Amino acid sequence: MTAPPERPPRAAWEALLALALAEDVGAGDVTSAIAIAADARGVARIEARTGLRVCGLAVAEAVFAAVDPSLRFEALASDGDDARAGQALARIAGRLRPLLAAERTALNFLGRLCGVATFTRRFVEAVRGTGAAIVDTRKTLPGWRALDKYAVGVGGGVNHRMGLFDGILLKDNHVAAAGGVAAAVKGALARAPSHLRVQVEVESLADARAAVEAGADFLLLDNRTPAELSVIAAALRGRALLEASGGVTLENVRAIAETGVQRISIGALTHSAPCADVALELDGAGVAT
Amino acid sequence: MTAPPERPPRAAWEALLALALAEDVGAGDVTSAIAIAADARGVARIEARTGLRVCGLAVAEAVFAAVDPSLRFEALASDGDDARAGQALARIAGRLRPLLAAERTALNFLGRLCGVATFTRRFVEAVRGTGAAIVDTRKTLPGWRALDKYAVGVGGGVNHRMGLFDGILLKDNHVAAAGGVAAAVKGALARAPSHLRVQVEVESLADARAAVEAGADFLLLDNRTPAELSVIAAALRGRALLEASGGVTLENVRAIAETGVQRISIGALTHSAPCADVALELDGAGVAT
Amino acid sequence: MTAPPERPPRAAWEALLALALAEDVGAGDVTSAIAIAADARGVARIEARTGLRVCGLAVAEAVFAAVDPSLRFEALASDGDDARAGQALARIAGRLRPLLAAERTALNFLGRLCGVATFTRRFVEAVRGTGAAIVDTRKTLPGWRALDKYAVGVGGGVNHRMGLFDGILLKDNHVAAAGGVAAAVKGALARAPSHLRVQVEVESLADARAAVEAGADFLLLDNRTPAELSVIAAALRGRALLEASGGVTLENVRAIAETGVQRISIGALTHSAPCADVALELDGAGVAT
Amino acid sequence: MTAPPERPPRAAWEALLALALAEDVGAGDVTSAIAIAADARGVARIEARTGLRVCGLAVAEAVFAAVDPSLRFEALASDGDDARAGQALARIAGRLRPLLAAERTALNFLGRLCGVATFTRRFVEAVRGTGAAIVDTRKTLPGWRALDKYAVGVGGGVNHRMGLFDGILLKDNHVAAAGGVAAAVKGALARAPSHLRVQVEVESLADARAAVEAGADFLLLDNRTPAELSVIAAALRGRALLEASGGVTLENVRAIAETGVQRISIGALTHSAPCADVALELDGAGVAT
Amino acid sequence: MTAPPERPPRAAWEALLALALAEDVGAGDVTSAIAIAADARGVARIEARTGLRVCGLAVAEAVFAAVDPSLRFEALASDGDDARAGQALARIAGRLRPLLAAERTALNFLGRLCGVATFTRRFVEAVRGTGAAIVDTRKTLPGWRALDKYAVGVGGGVNHRMGLFDGILLKDNHVAAAGGVAAAVKGALARAPSHLRVQVEVESLADARAAVEAGADFLLLDNRTPAELSVIAAALRGRALLEASGGVTLENVRAIAETGVQRISIGALTHSAPCADVALELDGAGVAT
Amino acid sequence: MTAPPERPPRAAWEALLALALAEDVGAGDVTSAIAIAADARGVARIEARTGLRVCGLAVAEAVFAAVDPSLRFEALASDGDDARAGQALARIAGRLRPLLAAERTALNFLGRLCGVATFTRRFVEAVRGTGAAIVDTRKTLPGWRALDKYAVGVGGGVNHRMGLFDGILLKDNHVAAAGGVAAAVKGALARAPSHLRVQVEVESLADARAAVEAGADFLLLDNRTPAELSVIAAALRGRALLEASGGVTLENVRAIAETGVQRISIGALTHSAPCADVALELDGAGVAT
Repeated sequence: MTAPPERPPRAAWEALLALALAEDVGAGDVTSAIAIAADARGVARIEARTGLRVCGLAVAEAVFAAVDPSLRFEALASDGDDARAGQALARIAGRLRPLLAAERTALNFLGRLCGVATFTRRFVEAVRGTGAAIVDTRKTLPGWRALDKYAVGVGGGVNHRMGLFDGILLKDNHVAAAGGVAAAVKGALARAPSHLRVQVEVESLADARAAVEAGADFLLLDNRTPAELSVIAAALRGRALLEASGGVTLENVRAIAETGVQRISIGALTHSAPCADVALELDGAGVAT
Repeated sequence: MTAPPERPPRAAWEALLALALAEDVGAGDVTSAIAIAADARGVARIEARTGLRVCGLAVAEAVFAAVDPSLRFEALASDGDDARAGQALARIAGRLRPLLAAERTALNFLGRLCGVATFTRRFVEAVRGTGAAIVDTRKTLPGWRALDKYAVGVGGGVNHRMGLFDGILLKDNHVAAAGGVAAAVKGALARAPSHLRVQVEVESLADARAAVEAGADFLLLDNRTPAELSVIAAALRGRALLEASGGVTLENVRAIAETGVQRISIGALTHSAPCADVALELDGAGVAT
Repeated sequence: MTAPPERPPRAAWEALLALALAEDVGAGDVTSAIAIAADARGVARIEARTGLRVCGLAVAEAVFAAVDPSLRFEALASDGDDARAGQALARIAGRLRPLLAAERTALNFLGRLCGVATFTRRFVEAVRGTGAAIVDTRKTLPGWRALDKYAVGVGGGVNHRMGLFDGILLKDNHVAAAGGVAAAVKGALARAPSHLRVQVEVESLADARAAVEAGADFLLLDNRTPAELSVIAAALRGRALLEASGGVTLENVRAIAETGVQRISIGALTHSAPCADVALELDGAGVAT
Repeated sequence: MTAPPERPPRAAWEALLALALAEDVGAGDVTSAIAIAADARGVARIEARTGLRVCGLAVAEAVFAAVDPSLRFEALASDGDDARAGQALARIAGRLRPLLAAERTALNFLGRLCGVATFTRRFVEAVRGTGAAIVDTRKTLPGWRALDKYAVGVGGGVNHRMGLFDGILLKDNHVAAAGGVAAAVKGALARAPSHLRVQVEVESLADARAAVEAGADFLLLDNRTPAELSVIAAALRGRALLEASGGVTLENVRAIAETGVQRISIGALTHSAPCADVALELDGAGVAT
Repeated sequence: MTAPPERPPRAAWEALLALALAEDVGAGDVTSAIAIAADARGVARIEARTGLRVCGLAVAEAVFAAVDPSLRFEALASDGDDARAGQALARIAGRLRPLLAAERTALNFLGRLCGVATFTRRFVEAVRGTGAAIVDTRKTLPGWRALDKYAVGVGGGVNHRMGLFDGILLKDNHVAAAGGVAAAVKGALARAPSHLRVQVEVESLADARAAVEAGADFLLLDNRTPAELSVIAAALRGRALLEASGGVTLENVRAIAETGVQRISIGALTHSAPCADVALELDGAGVAT
Repeated sequence: MTAPPERPPRAAWEALLALALAEDVGAGDVTSAIAIAADARGVARIEARTGLRVCGLAVAEAVFAAVDPSLRFEALASDGDDARAGQALARIAGRLRPLLAAERTALNFLGRLCGVATFTRRFVEAVRGTGAAIVDTRKTLPGWRALDKYAVGVGGGVNHRMGLFDGILLKDNHVAAAGGVAAAVKGALARAPSHLRVQVEVESLADARAAVEAGADFLLLDNRTPAELSVIAAALRGRALLEASGGVTLENVRAIAETGVQRISIGALTHSAPCADVALELDGAGVAT
């Protein structure tokens, strides 16, 4: 089993956390101010309501600390764990007003991050044994790139480039602008920064061959059927890293993986992952003045 | 038909837009810099790939303008329209490098916002004729509160409170802290700011009655079966506004609506809406130097 | 006696604190750098120079901590206390340069917040026994909404809506746009978010009656004389919550309260509250190297 | 007559403007969204309700533009003008929803800035003919330093240092730390940056003499009676610039000015200026769809 | 001749521009406010005082626009041009106060950016004909990464990775942690994101061979003499991309280039480039009221 | 020996620190994530590679803390110390991944700040015994004003005004706009804020005399030869503070200092100081899992 990915630095998600608290808590929680005594204290658990891949506990901890640094947060699981329904993921204790004020934002982060990790894990499991990697895309939620990609990694997926600045992918428009695959590849290899590899999107075996002959060693095969992928993989695997993409679902991902491509990139990992069901429960004896 | 909701002020989503461009474009698009001539120009369309409720065109326009103010963006539809598969939603013309750099961020915003609007619309249609309103929750994506709620409105849904600061909802923990429903409601009515209405969550007909007798005129009925809801609605409709929530799906929403509750709040509208399929196509003659 | 209001979350005033320190301290205190030894230490007290309602100690503490986290701040009073002239409100100890650099900003915050709380308290005392509440408005100082409203609460006042987003108040322009009070009220009740109550401004008994008959239960009676208010209150109290506003002074507030209105809103609480007189004194033996 | 002061750069107040709109408008104006048609347009005037010194029109204009760049704002007066009651200061035309959303924030800025300018002007007029200048202090509202000082200048006052970074003022604590006035002045003159002048606070004629003999040419005479000030001025005017401060009111300011001091600094200019009464009126025919 | 690099998006340097204006202009230019009439206008030229490679005109333009959007800026040269001493680079016209307020910040940006571009160009010229590329490092000035790297590109240099996030460079510490070159390379190739190439630092021919045999095709040869570099290049050029670094000066860079390495990375390009001499001159008839 | 200057408040450089980490670390260090075990720990030293004046240790400490608050940073020297080649300046211990991620940013800050301090010290030593002060200018690196000026102070230099807002310097354009030196000086003295001194630039003995006769006591003598400076100093020293500037180098600075001017301002201190050579070394036994 591989190590979990390094969590992105706090600076990479702190602005999002601040937006999240501003939009939910704003100038304060009116309900608790009128319904909970100022000095009431409590203890709460965050629970998984369904089986899920845990992801985002440090973000949840940061939410509680941002609302009230005196709240005590104890993680009862680690990112990358597989929690069963009913399992406690964390325990929070302290003044009840800030604890309840932070609850929804913390759960919204956790629900999203566990959701992406869990959804990714399902794809990873679907291709187990084939050697194919499940890869993310740039179809993340705006503002969430670092966290979404971290969740993919926690789910066992592999991260593609973070953005336009750290990877080269010649898509159809770039190929068209260059006048064809071979010209596009040659031009890119000549001009690309040396620390970045060049990937090129191709739509046929002929184009794939042309790309490889022009020097490409990393292809994106977009919207190809498993049959087409098998032909291309038979011809070029070993000469180039092959990545399939387009219309991948839990139903068809194994068939794609069995074609021999090494990577399968899936926008749905981040653009359409369902939220995981996590909840906060106050302990019975928790509400005390 | 009702008017579309007022789009949230730009200040309510500008920080998210800046985060989104920073994380995707960063210091620049390496691929276009090596594969597209500096002075190449193009014309592109944004298309709906499936039928969808349009939402977010002004945000998409802002993305292109932020990357390059000289790009011309022409909306070909309006928020609230129902677009058919293949319909063009906007047309963008100008320098190709910034046009392509902005593409993914613009589409990610549009895909999310059309997705939430479209998913909401499906619930709204499912209850058509019952008089029940489809209502959102605070289970939005962190950072996205204003935009997510706008998309719910564009989809025909009704917005619940924006956050903890603009609405009062006595939940189970508040009720427990007060020592019961009647005490909680009376305390809240006495202390609540006059511009806010008090809603209280109840879990049984007895509690619902107690709440109404204590003065509540707005109830949240969480996780009740349609049968239970019907009983409560028969008893209390007319004396209080009734909102059902918990486990609502496209399959069961109509049955819930037919119980007589006036509102159905659904976290999935925003926490699990699938992304809508939108794409950008460069026009054939578009790539010219 | 009622509990003091919950202090707004730090996120609601941290940006203002940062602006305040940037504009006063900037790149540093030139005078202390040339006149105070780098290692000089001292102990200081913040004192009330006149009787005042204490408000803002946590903000003052945050100012000192922002300038130098090693300064020790000890509150000697609590927000909501009534301090007599000469009473010490806090004690600060540590390195003298940062202590003096933070002094003015801390006092400016305290002077404003105690000033608003104290001014509010005077109105509250003026209506004692009448049952009328003293209510604030949106006429706060730009940038100070959350803190100004907190100070009103500390002074015993009641907060009206925080902003345009969390309350509905149909003013003359809205009524005119709708074609009259009845139409405006009916339209608003039909379209208003359920978590918000609808308040409507009226200028005569006739309009007040029309509003109530249209369903309004919360009226704003702007610029009415006590005589007019008495007539309206006699007619409608019990059917609607009545709020008087306009030209309220310490001189006339009791007469207004005695008309039977339940709320009196007063812009001057925040737009014209005089600053409270607070000062920082270094202890005699305080300056030591 | 002197020219009005240069308005501070927008960067010096843009953050405050953003805070102000966020706290008042937030995610949007609920009332207008339900009571004003989306395409309703109007024309409004901002009026002085009482005689006042105009200040802050560019800030008000910026508020309207920030809410909706398509609103047209036409200034009908200039900063530094003396407006009579009823005089129109500006005219705004455009979509009614954003116009009303911006109204309160714009008026709050104008009310404060005209208030400070008008209050300052009253002091300036009270000392007319004496040659004494009315000077501000650092007792401005946190976040408002640049705007408050601009308003003092518009009112005919003179700005003291902006903050701790751009002026040297040896106060009692600095003098005590140095072991006396003479030592403090000599040390400061030796160590002060050459571009800054050294001012020293003194509390007696003896100290004032000592300061001047030690090289000081700029004194602050704090909390001295007019009689004391007269003695000091008789002795030292011509050898040092003399500034009186402490407990200055409209009642006693002329007596102080007539003692011969050249400057009178007054914290109340900014910490306790009453708000000026400005209002926005929609033109009769203004509300049209 | 190659095209100039794409200028980094404004978002990549706008925060730095704001810091720069805040620190220099702050609340305003005191000198111009007292010495230049408010309505004085002028025309100025920015000139190269020595021969230089032009870089940063769009940043300079943005400085003037940020201070006063009504200033007209006309570029008289383009980034990438080689200007001779005395050549005008831009012409600015408008109100004199903001023009002078923006002058120093604009020149400080231009001086730095032209300085880096010009210094880079000297290295590029020193190796002309050898085929070696001049490459930058992460030794840029904090806050200046995107602009510094752009200037290197304008000077004819080649950009190495932007930061830690977009390139893989196994340095001595990574190699030590892995237990040797071969293990480090194999581990990195197995775990590296596919869109990034792996570069490894080696300190001897033996290690270089081991790295290549382990699969590395991109080596960093740090602090090797030209003689050592020649031996390594003779052995491995063609099997790996070779980059030399460490102690490179204008004196020794050609000798290094002639060893056969393809890249020479030089921290001094950005950490020690002297500022270029640019100045702003007001036209003779420029100062008019 | 004089005390080191007060370090600028953290608020004056925190934004720059955040930019610096964002641009270098971004979403994370890819290399360490694949080459260093997550739990590997280490101990590192920061060393001076050449003799240098130490400056910036608190900034370096803040860099490490920002990347990982659990890293322990121990300063082994103080700002203002003169370190010899090989001397350890600080020791950092903790988790290796964040330690290495922070390394380059910390060194880039230290290299710049020690560089400016060391370069300044060389000028200060060159004029030792003459009584002339070495003074900085506004030719600092954009974004670096507070830190650059601090480094000049640490190097033994004297700070001129921080920006346009805290000092008055009538330059050639201001003099021309006023119609000559005498008019410019008289106007400025009449209108200048009293807390700021007026400095005027002159280009000849005649102008210098005119300035002094008009009341100036602080002159800037720009681009004068030592011979010219000697004549002016002989005539005016004692009546005005004399500052020379323009084309000052380590070669000619002593000759200028010996002319009798009291101040020599030098843009190169900050616009062209070479970076100091500082490095981080991991201790031999440092890498442990």
